[in-house]
Amino acid sequence: MINIGIIGATGYAGEELIELLLGHAGVRIADISAKIEKPQDISDIFPKFRNRISLVCKEPDLKEICRKCDLIFLALPHTVSMEIVPKLLRAGKRVIDLSADYRLKDTKIYEKFYQVKQKDKVNLALSVYGLPEIYRARIKNAKLVANPGCYPTAAILALAPLASLNLVNPDSIIIDAKSGVTGAGRKLAEGFLFTEINEDFKSYRVNTHQHSPEINQELSKLAGKRIKVTFVPHLLPVSRGILATIYVNKAQNAKRKAQNLISLYQKFYKKEPFIRIRGENDFPKLKDVVGTNFCDIGIKDSQDNIIIVAAIDNLLKGAAGQAVQNMNIMCGFPEDTALK
Amino acid sequence: MINIGIIGATGYAGEELIELLLGHAGVRIADISAKIEKPQDISDIFPKFRNRISLVCKEPDLKEICRKCDLIFLALPHTVSMEIVPKLLRAGKRVIDLSADYRLKDTKIYEKFYQVKQKDKVNLALSVYGLPEIYRARIKNAKLVANPGCYPTAAILALAPLASLNLVNPDSIIIDAKSGVTGAGRKLAEGFLFTEINEDFKSYRVNTHQHSPEINQELSKLAGKRIKVTFVPHLLPVSRGILATIYVNKAQNAKRKAQNLISLYQKFYKKEPFIRIRGENDFPKLKDVVGTNFCDIGIKDSQDNIIIVAAIDNLLKGAAGQAVQNMNIMCGFPEDTALK
Amino acid sequence: MINIGIIGATGYAGEELIELLLGHAGVRIADISAKIEKPQDISDIFPKFRNRISLVCKEPDLKEICRKCDLIFLALPHTVSMEIVPKLLRAGKRVIDLSADYRLKDTKIYEKFYQVKQKDKVNLALSVYGLPEIYRARIKNAKLVANPGCYPTAAILALAPLASLNLVNPDSIIIDAKSGVTGAGRKLAEGFLFTEINEDFKSYRVNTHQHSPEINQELSKLAGKRIKVTFVPHLLPVSRGILATIYVNKAQNAKRKAQNLISLYQKFYKKEPFIRIRGENDFPKLKDVVGTNFCDIGIKDSQDNIIIVAAIDNLLKGAAGQAVQNMNIMCGFPEDTALK
Amino acid sequence: MINIGIIGATGYAGEELIELLLGHAGVRIADISAKIEKPQDISDIFPKFRNRISLVCKEPDLKEICRKCDLIFLALPHTVSMEIVPKLLRAGKRVIDLSADYRLKDTKIYEKFYQVKQKDKVNLALSVYGLPEIYRARIKNAKLVANPGCYPTAAILALAPLASLNLVNPDSIIIDAKSGVTGAGRKLAEGFLFTEINEDFKSYRVNTHQHSPEINQELSKLAGKRIKVTFVPHLLPVSRGILATIYVNKAQNAKRKAQNLISLYQKFYKKEPFIRIRGENDFPKLKDVVGTNFCDIGIKDSQDNIIIVAAIDNLLKGAAGQAVQNMNIMCGFPEDTALK
Repeated sequence: MINIGIIGATGYAGEELIELLLGHAGVRIADISAKIEKPQDISDIFPKFRNRISLVCKEPDLKEICRKCDLIFLALPHTVSMEIVPKLLRAGKRVIDLSADYRLKDTKIYEKFYQVKQKDKVNLALSVYGLPEIYRARIKNAKLVANPGCYPTAAILALAPLASLNLVNPDSIIIDAKSGVTGAGRKLAEGFLFTEINEDFKSYRVNTHQHSPEINQELSKLAGKRIKVTFVPHLLPVSRGILATIYVNKAQNAKRKAQNLISLYQKFYKKEPFIRIRGENDFPKLKDVVGTNFCDIGIKDSQDNIIIVAAIDNLLKGAAGQAVQNMNIMCGFPEDTALK
Repeated sequence: MINIGIIGATGYAGEELIELLLGHAGVRIADISAKIEKPQDISDIFPKFRNRISLVCKEPDLKEICRKCDLIFLALPHTVSMEIVPKLLRAGKRVIDLSADYRLKDTKIYEKFYQVKQKDKVNLALSVYGLPEIYRARIKNAKLVANPGCYPTAAILALAPLASLNLVNPDSIIIDAKSGVTGAGRKLAEGFLFTEINEDFKSYRVNTHQHSPEINQELSKLAGKRIKVTFVPHLLPVSRGILATIYVNKAQNAKRKAQNLISLYQKFYKKEPFIRIRGENDFPKLKDVVGTNFCDIGIKDSQDNIIIVAAIDNLLKGAAGQAVQNMNIMCGFPEDTALK
Repeated sequence: MINIGIIGATGYAGEELIELLLGHAGVRIADISAKIEKPQDISDIFPKFRNRISLVCKEPDLKEICRKCDLIFLALPHTVSMEIVPKLLRAGKRVIDLSADYRLKDTKIYEKFYQVKQKDKVNLALSVYGLPEIYRARIKNAKLVANPGCYPTAAILALAPLASLNLVNPDSIIIDAKSGVTGAGRKLAEGFLFTEINEDFKSYRVNTHQHSPEINQELSKLAGKRIKVTFVPHLLPVSRGILATIYVNKAQNAKRKAQNLISLYQKFYKKEPFIRIRGENDFPKLKDVVGTNFCDIGIKDSQDNIIIVAAIDNLLKGAAGQAVQNMNIMCGFPEDTALK
Repeated sequence: MINIGIIGATGYAGEELIELLLGHAGVRIADISAKIEKPQDISDIFPKFRNRISLVCKEPDLKEICRKCDLIFLALPHTVSMEIVPKLLRAGKRVIDLSADYRLKDTKIYEKFYQVKQKDKVNLALSVYGLPEIYRARIKNAKLVANPGCYPTAAILALAPLASLNLVNPDSIIIDAKSGVTGAGRKLAEGFLFTEINEDFKSYRVNTHQHSPEINQELSKLAGKRIKVTFVPHLLPVSRGILATIYVNKAQNAKRKAQNLISLYQKFYKKEPFIRIRGENDFPKLKDVVGTNFCDIGIKDSQDNIIIVAAIDNLLKGAAGQAVQNMNIMCGFPEDTALK
């Protein structure tokens, strides 16, 4: 039985982690904490948890957490994680960080996009980017996993086969992504009020979103050369789900030899429990994946171009689900435990 | 040409007032103000107004407002209005107040439900409750109109014929009301975030809502005896609209002589431009009234009981639309100007 | 390992049954059928099931179903079940019928509300009303369980303590219920199009809904005297969930001796795994129960009246979840298997 | 006073036409017809029109329509219009056709995408594409206006300045468009049920939508050379509105001389009453245009690429609003009459 701590339990990802871990026979939620006015039972904060868990959520006490827990999830805002991670690692704990703090290997880029200093370069160097489909072997023994962002999860999984095989013109990738509102976290801002978002739809941070460099970093690694995507996120009036429509120009070598892209994707992901490749002219919709840890991918080969549609649940494969998948890998549980 | 001021222009009711008055040929929006960090053109705050109005919205300057305007709408939170109204009236201006400050004639009840002192009893005594279907004659010459609450508008209009004719058992009235989210104003609270309200539905302030005494006051006046309703409001995951389902027991005299309730309602409201009575087994839905100033009412006679369903747009007949209707009456415009 | 058949697998309740049973270690889905144009894998009909189940859904072949299955769920429209049930029972199978065909013991009432003849009075007499909180002992050995309607589940659970103890005036019960759209089934009618329901809200079948007699039947049994409720359902623009706001007048004996109603409810339901009673001034919202098999109940004691708010997920506790709960009881599984 | 006929009054565009024309002082709705089971007052079909219009809607009787009306709107499905248009024109009537029948000048392309024969080539040759910003002069005297499709309206207006000035690489245009559900018409298909669309989002007809050739035709004309766009539409869970995010590569001449694209757009559209160009880093959202006849356009210059976001109300500027704008031009009314 692994003892689990969740720091940041009152956000959407934290809430989802509790939901998932309550269904996991190999772990026990030992400590729940968050920025909170006064200690309160988590089942009073979220009445849906009544009769299922009773545990007081309070401000995090790192000593107590280290005493009680083996593995800790951080579901914290960016920049807060890097204050806490060094202490947890020093105490010998394993950490899965859902924030962006340990995702970007280039601290200058981190600092440009998040507008704070990366103060923990030592652990940044050790952290493993928690996308199991790419880094499974390294996740197994990782002390610190940087759980990927929601948009990057969809975008990288959609493009990894093409990038790895250098089938795509590196300057041509356009990612038009649409996300449900939980993607922004439980943020108290006028723009997230029901009346503002209901019956509305908009783009935001047009080609300046902080997830762009994360996508660029991982695709460039896979391709072995610099890839820079055009990335425009949009806000959907739904609670959950990301659907990304991706447009790429084929590289010269891809144009030369015709190949069946769908087969190529199926082969690339053939052992992956959470990737489902669609057939000809079959594209995923949000409903196919919301409530699941799957990433569904549809592909259309249009002569010189390729159109890819990828869908995930931003709180599952895009956050808490992927975090639990990483935990399963780290702890030797079957990878889909509590995720089916 | 009447010059209009709007204080509180950035809330939902204020925004709607601008929309309506832009379509009114007899008035000119002369001043727009609100609690606001720095002055900003109203068409930058609401891009939908671009090319339609350009006017800077700033903190209210009462002297300037009095210089520029003949009639002022107050779309302010409760308790703020009564600080401003005395000054505007003293300057000889006519005022339509959309807050609750001048609605409750009994200051003890006001103080109980709003938890502040009513400090302007002089003007409270002069204020006219702005429900044209009941008080049209007095509204015409009023200096200060207290524009009714959204729930009370629906409830009082639905019950006025029965109350006036004493056909209803005064202790038996149950009002189960459901409102869209704009009813709560543009309020920055976690409970009003999109993700909280989307796909949810709940009751709130179960039989303790501050609109109860307003309904009781007006129905009691109509009946000539004390009426005390049971009132449970609910929050609908829609932007606009109120639907109230009302259950009453008939009074003895109503049980004795059979009568066609639908005809009775049609007769009661026969000259009213904004009341539509439905036929047998025909009940209004939100869509029939949203975007209009109508109150639609369906009635079912069930032996000893009566079921009434009433629907309004909470921002129109329940707020800004009714306010413009009152303005039309006060200024001698045809009553439906800008409201069709 | 129990072999399960689902007839009517393509409706909302059928889809939900598959979802639940896939997570149940003690059963195996052996046959899936529905009214369907041509046989198709269920994971092509519902892409969310890909990689989770692969089984062809075709027109029901009762012989094959009886050969393959031990227990059969019928998720069929009303009147279709009673054609099939006799054959399944004759083959010695156990049946859980989610339709209304075997719920109403009085065939005249059935015929009045469903406008067809009840042709299977023999099995009707044997059927057990599948509300575990009331009929658990009889469900255990039942051959045929009539799974309750969604509205009746919420209403009966909300009122059972008061009815059983005769604390309520039998003519005074008003049930103002609001349901998500899946309550109506996957029905191809203009009124269920997205654009019709989105941003709308309405009452329907005002005090004439076919679930009224089901509520009356069960409450009357509990009270030992005739109870006839006023029942007005409404259609919420959400996919799932029922919230019922219920108003009752206390009976004389309830008025005489003051008692804590919340304690009374807690005691009544103290061993129930799926009933959660709320504390003082704490009422459930849809989100507390959607996705769960719980029925949450809040109670307000208002002098001579009582207000009760009850919430369930109409597809879980109101349909498929309750059906699985019944199956668990019938087959000796822990009652909450696959329902947590 | 112009007498107006609406054929196809019960669809979303027809309903919207009635709404707009009721607010137009220069016209009178003289005849309303539709495919309908039995004649019914339009205010019984749409209760929101009660007390505003009373006119029986019945199957179209072309003789009667020609006798009563001067100008006729056809809000009919594709292929139905071309049966009716010749008769109306022969009777000397002016026609605004909201279907696609007279939009595509190349009948082979029409037949490929709509899979029926274009049978009225004579009037096709005379028809004017009803986009006032491009064809105002010709619309003025047109007998037959082919009102543009909703997606093409947004796409063409967003790209017309670049296409006209040949600033864009003709093979590079990607249009990722998202539409509210009314865009599909009041269609009784399972995919348009509330429960299917609510909380969902999907692409459809990926690069095969019938609006592609309409966009290609008009942009090619403007550019004076063949343009072929990549067009992927998506279905938003909202009732109204289209937002198109458009990605283009600059042509060589555009890369050579730096220019301010926003100024260029403002200049191109400077006299247009319904085009609003946004400033630097300011992009439209659906709410800015829903309920209006505006097309709002935001532009981002990204070195070699340009990103354009355009928003319209699909039922107004994308259908009925544009149709009324065309009528105003044809009849000599101020162009924004009934459209403010």
